[in-house]
Amino acid sequence: MRTTISIGSDLRIGGDTFAVLAGPCAVETRELLFAAADAVTAAGATMLRGGAFKPRTSPRSFQGLGEQGLELLREASQRTGLGVVTEVMDPRDVEVVAAHADVLQIGSRNMQNFPLLREVGRQSKPVLLKRAAAATIDELLHAAEYVTQEGNGDVMLCERGVRGFDPSTRYLLDLSAVPVLRERSPLPVVVDPSHGTGDARYVAAMARAAVAAGADALLIEVHAEPERALCDGRQALTPAAFANLSTELQQLARLMGRRWQFGNQKAAGAHAGRRSDPTIPTFDDEVIAP
Amino acid sequence: MRTTISIGSDLRIGGDTFAVLAGPCAVETRELLFAAADAVTAAGATMLRGGAFKPRTSPRSFQGLGEQGLELLREASQRTGLGVVTEVMDPRDVEVVAAHADVLQIGSRNMQNFPLLREVGRQSKPVLLKRAAAATIDELLHAAEYVTQEGNGDVMLCERGVRGFDPSTRYLLDLSAVPVLRERSPLPVVVDPSHGTGDARYVAAMARAAVAAGADALLIEVHAEPERALCDGRQALTPAAFANLSTELQQLARLMGRRWQFGNQKAAGAHAGRRSDPTIPTFDDEVIAP
Amino acid sequence: MRTTISIGSDLRIGGDTFAVLAGPCAVETRELLFAAADAVTAAGATMLRGGAFKPRTSPRSFQGLGEQGLELLREASQRTGLGVVTEVMDPRDVEVVAAHADVLQIGSRNMQNFPLLREVGRQSKPVLLKRAAAATIDELLHAAEYVTQEGNGDVMLCERGVRGFDPSTRYLLDLSAVPVLRERSPLPVVVDPSHGTGDARYVAAMARAAVAAGADALLIEVHAEPERALCDGRQALTPAAFANLSTELQQLARLMGRRWQFGNQKAAGAHAGRRSDPTIPTFDDEVIAP
Amino acid sequence: MRTTISIGSDLRIGGDTFAVLAGPCAVETRELLFAAADAVTAAGATMLRGGAFKPRTSPRSFQGLGEQGLELLREASQRTGLGVVTEVMDPRDVEVVAAHADVLQIGSRNMQNFPLLREVGRQSKPVLLKRAAAATIDELLHAAEYVTQEGNGDVMLCERGVRGFDPSTRYLLDLSAVPVLRERSPLPVVVDPSHGTGDARYVAAMARAAVAAGADALLIEVHAEPERALCDGRQALTPAAFANLSTELQQLARLMGRRWQFGNQKAAGAHAGRRSDPTIPTFDDEVIAP
Repeated sequence: MRTTISIGSDLRIGGDTFAVLAGPCAVETRELLFAAADAVTAAGATMLRGGAFKPRTSPRSFQGLGEQGLELLREASQRTGLGVVTEVMDPRDVEVVAAHADVLQIGSRNMQNFPLLREVGRQSKPVLLKRAAAATIDELLHAAEYVTQEGNGDVMLCERGVRGFDPSTRYLLDLSAVPVLRERSPLPVVVDPSHGTGDARYVAAMARAAVAAGADALLIEVHAEPERALCDGRQALTPAAFANLSTELQQLARLMGRRWQFGNQKAAGAHAGRRSDPTIPTFDDEVIAP
Repeated sequence: MRTTISIGSDLRIGGDTFAVLAGPCAVETRELLFAAADAVTAAGATMLRGGAFKPRTSPRSFQGLGEQGLELLREASQRTGLGVVTEVMDPRDVEVVAAHADVLQIGSRNMQNFPLLREVGRQSKPVLLKRAAAATIDELLHAAEYVTQEGNGDVMLCERGVRGFDPSTRYLLDLSAVPVLRERSPLPVVVDPSHGTGDARYVAAMARAAVAAGADALLIEVHAEPERALCDGRQALTPAAFANLSTELQQLARLMGRRWQFGNQKAAGAHAGRRSDPTIPTFDDEVIAP
Repeated sequence: MRTTISIGSDLRIGGDTFAVLAGPCAVETRELLFAAADAVTAAGATMLRGGAFKPRTSPRSFQGLGEQGLELLREASQRTGLGVVTEVMDPRDVEVVAAHADVLQIGSRNMQNFPLLREVGRQSKPVLLKRAAAATIDELLHAAEYVTQEGNGDVMLCERGVRGFDPSTRYLLDLSAVPVLRERSPLPVVVDPSHGTGDARYVAAMARAAVAAGADALLIEVHAEPERALCDGRQALTPAAFANLSTELQQLARLMGRRWQFGNQKAAGAHAGRRSDPTIPTFDDEVIAP
Repeated sequence: MRTTISIGSDLRIGGDTFAVLAGPCAVETRELLFAAADAVTAAGATMLRGGAFKPRTSPRSFQGLGEQGLELLREASQRTGLGVVTEVMDPRDVEVVAAHADVLQIGSRNMQNFPLLREVGRQSKPVLLKRAAAATIDELLHAAEYVTQEGNGDVMLCERGVRGFDPSTRYLLDLSAVPVLRERSPLPVVVDPSHGTGDARYVAAMARAAVAAGADALLIEVHAEPERALCDGRQALTPAAFANLSTELQQLARLMGRRWQFGNQKAAGAHAGRRSDPTIPTFDDEVIAP
């Protein structure tokens, strides 16, 4: 029996659903955020992602807009109707982030930040927990226990690439984590092909592969103008590329027997219904019968 | 323009086709080989795989039947109509293997065995070159050059898992190698989810993922009685599991716009046609149009 | 010009000195802590290590004694005269830990816990920053910048093993980090062979190797009764093994031209002077001259 | 009881000895080879290394001089009195290489080239077996069994760096392999800090560390003019740097209780005796006694 997590009154992540959480790496300006938010909404995304508090390797890189970024995400959410997933890095910020976000993201670098895990475990908002770059599956599951032990059972487990040796990709996306996690845990499994590859050219292939491997959701970076992004622009899809990918993913998800979760079906437009074309059989259909 | 490799007069690997090379890890007995060969033929496989010369970590493990194994593979080929792919480990064996096999496999441990690569480069049979467990994509492409430089341009590049740190799987199947290889080379890309995971429980998920990532072919281990296998039984599918998987893969391949290559369409039976159900649109169809 | 960090009025880490920070993984009981503290003091250690707040993979493992552990460390420090290095995991605990400890340790899992790094950067106590298991050298140096940017320049960089693929050791101790770090940074370089190997059988060899590679200090786990330890007992040296190792290290350090830093030279006894036997030439001596 | 391998009538590798095998990566010209050979002989090296058959990632790189290179090595050996270690890549070349070389090297890429291992196992010359970049210690030991099983027990096990994720070094030199190998096998353990780091700046530190970790021998690249080398010049020491390092290593080896093996003690000159300065105590001496 797989865990299903409710987002608002209508959406579900896990079970026989499929969700896409999309948006920019970081909240930069109102205009860029709204452009990305509108685009992913129209393309059928389930939730809006975007970072207000950014963990950056160097202290001299852009660190995010902080609380101002949270306000902009809230505005974008009201504008589009999509719920918001955003990262929290500091146990002292958990309350303010939880007041603005619908899902609390724990980043890869904080997977074993145990005080932080305990703090989000005391909130009533679902948690998206990203696997650390050198964590085993068992370490990820133990980290999830730090959250659930505090009373919050709504944890999604996110594969986002482990440290590999080949500079062809930024990280090595471990898609076998999907069936392994599904074997060991009932929690929903999310895949982030944007960080996992670090290269927009490979995101679509790995996003499709994640669906086919059995993932419950995807986390995908979309930026209105990737070449101008302050953070990880190289891995962000353009709105047009995301729209194409979303169409493919909807067909694949249907073939996998999944119900697509539209964050705003009306905004996703007349196409939304057609994309989940009922003429595509699912693996469960008796397609080989006469 | 992608390279297409002909197997016999009818089959193609690469381009818009999809192929599955299936069979036991090692040739053990005539009975077991024929049982596996019959099963994969009926399930729609393209070619028969099986090892006569086995590279084993320990000199005390079963080392394969050698030339006798090649003879049995030839018999199985005649029986089923499927071409045979088998490994060659020693430059001194290349001629005898080439006399029996339709595709010459270079194993992961020999990816940089340059005298062997040169020797298979002088043959007229296609080569399946497996990536070494610590090789970068560029090293794999350079290894392929050792073959092509000798005049044999029919090389398939096979991802079969790199060395990872998590004991959850035997190797870490690097599916991002598929889009990266496709970006850098026109040669067909093959994925081996059996060695890549080392665990039959995860093979189907990763096989589907490979198709969705854009692979041109799969190499899958199937054993009539996995629990009795002398070699890697833990990762072999049963005939029944393979038949189920093949059905799923045929639908996925069609969605990806691929033409399935039946090694023996007649033996694959009445189902073969239906599995490639024309009611499944492909990503190229204008499925979202009214 | 290399950075030298003062510990109390007499001790120096960095430059031409050599320091050993030794003690149990975790503070468990007063008796066990004092036994270890007395033993490492007598064997010539520079500082006492011990964890009060323990980051454990599973929430069901022993989590440390917290503030009570800090009190016991302070008592052990008064008893032995050795300064104390202990880990802080939560930005909200930094002040209390800084009030009890002489050096603030940032554990491997928190190397990129940026709010925590900033908080210790605002303290006047030196910081021991451990490299994360998948961090590059550059990422470690950037993490150190988060501390120094806040005004605290007394940072020691600690190699403690990266994630490897061979189960022979728990982590893969990357000793080449020593010359690479020395090339790129003036900060003292510390090596932890206990976590780096996870196995008491290999600690002495890797401790010696670290000295020869040019490390400025070692972090070594010593437990009065390793087989009873609540945490990482497998990698802890007995007091006797540590005493033997300390003798070897003192000779090696002298050969490397280093002055050993005794935390309590009197307690280290009559042997202390002899161990740094002046008849051992250093590499700088004109030993090959007639 | 540790295995000791005889090289000629006088030299021993293993046990309480210490050996350095030094020379260029590849044999390029007579002049360059002789210059390197003379330099390493004068600096106290035990044997001369140099590649005639070179395994190169790209088929367009310099592939070695082949048999002509073997002849030059033989000449250099006669000139200096040092025995020669050189690589063999092809089972069909084993006899000719064995006719010219004193030690047969199996390169990292061929660690699991089982036909080649069996072939050198049938020779009467010692074998230097290099660990593959993704091989576990157990896989290395199993590979050695392929040699010993054929009757040749004179195998040296060589750590030369595993595949790591940090571009700071070319490979990640796993020095913990030294104590692990010594625990599991009586065979001599060799370390190659030149390939292991890929950077001449780090070779000395890692060479010293290897001695301190308990290695029985080192394999070090020395080139008369590194900047002109056709192969791996970046990691080659100059003759002057090697002479300095050799002096340090002799002192360290003595401290470790090892007897230095001079390939040509007379050529190593008046200094040789002084370098093994008997005033340096060894760890076994009762140095701390009054």
